[in-house]
Formats: sequence, structure tokens, C-alpha cells
Amino acid sequence: MERPSQPTGGTARLEAFSDGVFAIAITLLVLQLDVPKEDAHLGAALLRSWPAYLAFVNSFLTIGVMWMNHDRLFKHIRRTDHALSMLNLLLLLCVTAVPFPTDVLARHLGHPGGRVAALLYNGTFVVTAIFFNALWHHASAGGRLLGEGFDAAEVRAITRQYAFGPAVYLACFALSFASAGAGFAGSVAVAIFFALPPRAAVRARA
Amino acid sequence: MERPSQPTGGTARLEAFSDGVFAIAITLLVLQLDVPKEDAHLGAALLRSWPAYLAFVNSFLTIGVMWMNHDRLFKHIRRTDHALSMLNLLLLLCVTAVPFPTDVLARHLGHPGGRVAALLYNGTFVVTAIFFNALWHHASAGGRLLGEGFDAAEVRAITRQYAFGPAVYLACFALSFASAGAGFAGSVAVAIFFALPPRAAVRARA
Amino acid sequence: MERPSQPTGGTARLEAFSDGVFAIAITLLVLQLDVPKEDAHLGAALLRSWPAYLAFVNSFLTIGVMWMNHDRLFKHIRRTDHALSMLNLLLLLCVTAVPFPTDVLARHLGHPGGRVAALLYNGTFVVTAIFFNALWHHASAGGRLLGEGFDAAEVRAITRQYAFGPAVYLACFALSFASAGAGFAGSVAVAIFFALPPRAAVRARA
Amino acid sequence: MERPSQPTGGTARLEAFSDGVFAIAITLLVLQLDVPKEDAHLGAALLRSWPAYLAFVNSFLTIGVMWMNHDRLFKHIRRTDHALSMLNLLLLLCVTAVPFPTDVLARHLGHPGGRVAALLYNGTFVVTAIFFNALWHHASAGGRLLGEGFDAAEVRAITRQYAFGPAVYLACFALSFASAGAGFAGSVAVAIFFALPPRAAVRARA
Repeated sequence: MERPSQPTGGTARLEAFSDGVFAIAITLLVLQLDVPKEDAHLGAALLRSWPAYLAFVNSFLTIGVMWMNHDRLFKHIRRTDHALSMLNLLLLLCVTAVPFPTDVLARHLGHPGGRVAALLYNGTFVVTAIFFNALWHHASAGGRLLGEGFDAAEVRAITRQYAFGPAVYLACFALSFASAGAGFAGSVAVAIFFALPPRAAVRARA
Repeated sequence: MERPSQPTGGTARLEAFSDGVFAIAITLLVLQLDVPKEDAHLGAALLRSWPAYLAFVNSFLTIGVMWMNHDRLFKHIRRTDHALSMLNLLLLLCVTAVPFPTDVLARHLGHPGGRVAALLYNGTFVVTAIFFNALWHHASAGGRLLGEGFDAAEVRAITRQYAFGPAVYLACFALSFASAGAGFAGSVAVAIFFALPPRAAVRARA
Repeated sequence: MERPSQPTGGTARLEAFSDGVFAIAITLLVLQLDVPKEDAHLGAALLRSWPAYLAFVNSFLTIGVMWMNHDRLFKHIRRTDHALSMLNLLLLLCVTAVPFPTDVLARHLGHPGGRVAALLYNGTFVVTAIFFNALWHHASAGGRLLGEGFDAAEVRAITRQYAFGPAVYLACFALSFASAGAGFAGSVAVAIFFALPPRAAVRARA
Repeated sequence: MERPSQPTGGTARLEAFSDGVFAIAITLLVLQLDVPKEDAHLGAALLRSWPAYLAFVNSFLTIGVMWMNHDRLFKHIRRTDHALSMLNLLLLLCVTAVPFPTDVLARHLGHPGGRVAALLYNGTFVVTAIFFNALWHHASAGGRLLGEGFDAAEVRAITRQYAFGPAVYLACFALSFASAGAGFAGSVAVAIFFALPPRAAVRARA
């Protein structure tokens, strides 16, 4: 094994590899759901597990929105270098880790360990959002890895919008100190906000 | 992280990501099969587990047919927007969830919890079929995201045919109230029906 | 959901979906390996588990060779129809199932249940080889789904060679009746035989 | 099934299949992390598990760097033959196996079984690095499977650099005899070294 020395290269296989990792991480989430053993009251047992299902759906949507953001960035990024590959790898490390804090949260929400679980859960998203910004900063600074004749206004718009991510998840992280439920609710609110139609579309309709 | 603001874009990565999710969800089903610990009577122990194997095969074929339908829709859909991405994500959420109701059904069929398990199983397919229709409606209404010069008759044919899915699974859902076995048998019958050669081909040969 | 009515279409997404399923099934095999809990004699505990490792390697190579054969067939197959999609789906069903008989074999080899386990293991490969032949027969008969100006001699050569697969695995299946070890050894011998350089190449160098 | 007899073919599907296997192996690592059951002292329980998290991160980065190296090699390799497919399959066998020695290490580091676990862990990387060299040697010797007009100096540079991999992991393997901690620390140091910017870039900036 060796550190690649090529300064730049196309992004096709990087995107294919990343798509695979996102697709697997988002699909592995379901393995965390425990099948109730209670048979006579199966319906009640399933309903009692709603925090686990909500954590599953929330993590699914969060990884899904991350994938949409990754797809968006790589519509602008045309070349790779060693640093981009490593930043992308660290970003994927966070994405593949998500099933673990999701599982911790699903098992401890509503119990004394809930606060620590919510901190771990939102902390994972804070770090992920920071790597998103670092990756974009590396690729876009001076148009380093963007395509010829990139749209400087669009690049600035992305930079402004992505700076928002760490702040929002940091707020959820802080909320988790107050209460696990509040921290988790914050994270659900963020996922719903990102899932809504973008502002641009809202304005267009106004 | 940020909500993508681009109104439209190509579907290549969306299809690649979706292929990954379908492929993983369909392959994870096997993890639910328990290896019998009984050694002296292994053959009998394996035969006794037939409901689990049948649930595995039925869910495999159902996800497989869903993939074929997804492939078919995206032969017509040429562009994406935020709403399409989100509807596709909700559709994939249902697909990745399938191993869970399959596992619940495999463990509770033939026991008192069987009815609830069959309701959950067919309910998952009802919701999936509804998202399929919502996605197609959004993409095809007025030809919003279809290719130039799309075939209006073919689009109407798909719309008519897909409206069939929720109705069929709703019937299986209703059957599950009467009996878990009937609901599951209905779902198997639907999978076999979809796996048979299409009517168009049957007519062509007539 | 609906049965696709298009008679034919390209194979790109079918190949991508199949690649995903093969890649996941081959990678899930590792999850069956149990980490020994014995700490003081970890080395001895690992060595004692050799049948599980051998079953893992054998199933890995067998799925790998299946993938190479799938790749080879789809270098000739250029179009899909409903029957090809369904035969491919049934082939993938066998491929995704492989981790289960592998696990059964790994846990029962050398115990009274070994014979049943070896029968299940080789039986899975018999069925897989039959689906390979059915898929190829459907695609190649009269050149139905092959490219324009396909090489009839090469097609006949593939047909002759693939007929060999079910026979070989049927022999391993029969051997398993005599002894689980013999059946498993037969399956390992087949994997090694397929992994060796092909006869054509050997002759070319002679 | 049959051994492919075509001497050469394109690498697109081989790369897609390999990307899938790398992506899945790197994502399955997270399944090894156990969610602590202790609720009242969840934070402490999580902190106590640091060796498992470090092993997870180290294996993630190591597989990630392997993927980058695979990507790099296949920018030069343009054709496949039976031997390349088999060597690639053996390389992927090592990659998919990584979650197992990682799990063994995470559970035994700091206990009497740690030495055996570290030997198994680094031994897996030694074998992987050897297969990387064998694959490259087969593809590049005499330019056998490289593109027309390949860069002989770049090929020699890769050959020199990759010879380094087995030596480095062999040193970590040897260190593990002295102490499990030293062997694991060596492996972490190697991962960090490979993650740093390449020498070429360092020189360019000097």
C-alpha cells in the first residue's frame, strides 16, 4: 500500500464509492430494530418501541439529506487530490458511524443515560457537518478542484449555507445538556427543516 | 448541511444510490434466518422453519419487483428536483424497513401475535406503493421531470397500472384482520402475480 | 407496483443492481465468523474454528466465481425482458441465500448434523447453477437478447461449458450423502478448479 | 458455472464490483461496536470502550487507504484476464475479512489474548499488501494489462512504493510479538502516515 501521489484525478470512482457507503450506512440502520419476543401483546410491544423507530427514521432522513448534499457538492467538484480523498474518507467515517449513536440513543432515551446518548448523537452530526465544510472549503478555495468557469456566486452561496450546518447541530448538542428529549427533538426538527422544499423554491412561488 | 437549492439535475447518481439501497435491503434479509442449534435432528429443525424461509423469499421477490418498477420509472424520469429526491428518499425508507416487518412476521406467524405481524407486513407494502404513486405523480404531472417528447400514452398506462398497487396491498392488509395466514398468503399471491409475464406480452403472444 | 410491460431495455442498471447484490452477499459472509470469548488460549480457540474459516473462504470464492460468470454472460447479453429480469432475480435470490447454508455448514460440520448441512450447502449451488443455465438459455436461444452479429460459436461454447455446473454440484450433493466431509471437500475442489487458469489459456500457451 | 475463457476484457464492472465490496466492508465495521447496557454510567461505559473505537477508526482508515490504492492502480490497468480477476478476488477476500480481526482485537486488546489478536490483525494486512503487489506485478509486467503508451517511469514508481507495504506491516506483525499494544500502535502509525499528504506534494511545496 502506498499514498497516492497523483495530484488530481476524476471524481467518478470517488462518487461511486461514496454512494455505496451512504447506501449501506442508511440501510444498516434497520438492523438495530429489535423484534419483540412478546407474542400475546405484540401490538403493544411494538408501540412501546416508538423511540427506536423515531431514531431510525430521523437517522435515515439525516443520512439521506447528507447524501443529497454530497451529490450537490460533487456536481461542482470535478477533480480530486489526496487531501480531498482524505477529507471525504473522514466524512464517510462519520456517516458509517451513525448507526452506533442511533442505537445508543434508541436504547437509552427516556432513561438516566439519555443525556449522554443525545450528546453523542448530536455530537456525531456536529463533526460530520464540520467535515462537510472542510471538504468544501478545500475544494472551492480559489476554485482549486472545481470545473472550468465555475459559478462564483453559486459557490459563495453554498459556502454560506453550509456554514449553517455545524451551528444548527451545535445548538442541538447544547440542548441535549438541558434534556435528552429536547436535544433529540431539535435533531428531528432539523431533519424536517432540511426535508422541506428549499427557500429558493419558496421565493419562486411567492 | 443544507437543503439543495438547484431546481433540477440529472438522475444518474440518484439511480446509483437507489440501486445500492435496494441491493443492500434485499441482501440483508438473509441475516434474519436463524441457524438451528439442534444438531441430531438438523433436517427436521430446518423444515420446521419454513415460515421464515417463505417470508424471506416473499420479501426478496417483493423488493425485487419494486426495484424493477423503480428502474422502469426512471427510464422515463430524466431530471430531479428537491421534491423528487425527498419522495425517493421516503420510498427508500420503506424499502430499507422491509427486513424488520419480515423478521416480525417470520417469528410470530402461527402464534397469537401473527395477526399484528401480518398487518405490519402488508401495511409496509401499502405505504411503499403509495410513495411509488406519489413519486410518479410528481414526476409525470404535466411531464414535469420527464424527457423531451415523452410518450403520453405510456405515461398514462403507467399511472393506471401503479394505482393498482396500493389497492392490492390494502386488500392483503384487510385480509390480515381476518387471519394472519390469509394476509400473508395474499401477499405471496401478489408477488407471484407480479413475477408472471406481463399482460402486454401475453396479449402479444395471443 | 406493477409488472413492467416494456419488452426490452438496456442492461446497465440490471448489471449495477446485480453487482451490488453480489458484492454485499460476498461481504456479509464475514459476519458469520464468531469471535472466540476464550482469552487465555485465544490462538488455540481460533485454530479450532478452522472449518468455519474454510467454509467462509470457500463460499467467498464460489460467489466470486459466480460473479465472474455473471459478468461474462452480460458481455454478450445486450437487452432485457421481463423473463430475463425474473430469472436474474431468482439467481440473485440464490446468491444472497449463500451466507445461510454457509453458516449452517460451519456450525454443524464434524457433528451429526453435518450431512444435512452439506446437502443444504451443495444443494444451494445446484439450484444456482440451474438458474445460470436457464438465464443463459432464455437470453441466447435464437440470439433473443444478444447483441447484433453475436458470435454463434462463442455462444455454443458457453452453453456447453455452463451445462457442466449443475452436474458438478450435483456430484458434490451426492457425495454429501456418503459423508459431509466428502461433500464439502468436493465443493472446495470445484472452487479451486474454477479458480485455476482456464483450459483455453493453457492450450494457447502450449 | 464455468471458468471464463476470454483472455481480456474491460475493467468497468470489475471496478464497480470492487467498489461495492470495499464500501460494504468499511461500513460493516460499525456493527462490531457494542452498545453499553449500563444506563446510569453510560458516559463512563462509552469511554471505557475506547480500544474498540480506536480499532474501528484504524480499520476504517486502513480499508479507506486500500481503496485509494486500488483506485490508483486501476487508473493504469485497462484490461482484465483470468489471473487478474482471481488476484483481485483474493485481495477482496482480505478486505472483507478485516471486520473479523478488528473485532478480535477490540475484544482482546489489554487482555492475555491481546498478542494473538494483534498478530492476527497485522497478519491480515501483511497478506493484503502481498496480494496488492502480486496484482500489480501481474498487470504491469511488460505492460501486460496497462493502457497503450503507459508511463514506464510512473509504473516503476508505483512498483517501488508498493513494495514498501508488506515490509511495513511485517514490522507491525513483528512488533506484536513483543507487545500487543506496540503492534497495534504500529498499525495506527502506518494508517496516519498513509493519510498524510504524499511526499511528491511535500516536495512540490518545498
